[in-house]
Amino acid sequence: MHIKAEPPYYAVIFTSRRTEGDNGYAEAAARMGELAAQQPGFLGWDAARTGPELGITVSYWKDEESIAGWRNHLEHAPTREHGRANWYEDFEVHVARVERTYRWTKES
Amino acid sequence: MHIKAEPPYYAVIFTSRRTEGDNGYAEAAARMGELAAQQPGFLGWDAARTGPELGITVSYWKDEESIAGWRNHLEHAPTREHGRANWYEDFEVHVARVERTYRWTKES
Repeated sequence: MHIKAEPPYYAVIFTSRRTEGDNGYAEAAARMGELAAQQPGFLGWDAARTGPELGITVSYWKDEESIAGWRNHLEHAPTREHGRANWYEDFEVHVARVERTYRWTKES
Repeated sequence: MHIKAEPPYYAVIFTSRRTEGDNGYAEAAARMGELAAQQPGFLGWDAARTGPELGITVSYWKDEESIAGWRNHLEHAPTREHGRANWYEDFEVHVARVERTYRWTKES
């Protein structure tokens, strides 16, 4: 998704390996997407997955305060706990400050 | 892939929508992966794709200088031109400074 904000803003890069089966993941992910989009400072997100072995979700935020707000959201925190118990073999999070962006679209 | 470096380092987030068909993409992507891994300051990368509509590749680099070195690589630059002509409908690049990381692995 195209992020309309001007840098600097923040990216949270979530890279994960899933357990087998859905185990309620798809429904919870959709719900988390709805909630995140309502959070102050949420700018957008993209997610892609190649089988269970690798998924990448990048969410974009206005500042560190908005990232902390989402981390402490009353419904997000227990869902993360549920995810560690049920959905993930491992994951890695990178919090990064976006310095510059570049966008290209094919001429039609 | 787990990045062993300590922050701060850099992430280049490449989000793309592909054209139909392979058009030589897979072979070129494998070659670019080999070349990038030989570049000074390369720390690792992850790539995932959900159909043609969305791919995310994140590469990690020691500093801005190593990103510039790869951008100016003699074989990478013409491959990017080829990609604009043949492989992509659109793409977006975010260059971001990784401030902190968090990693979790299920206890076995």
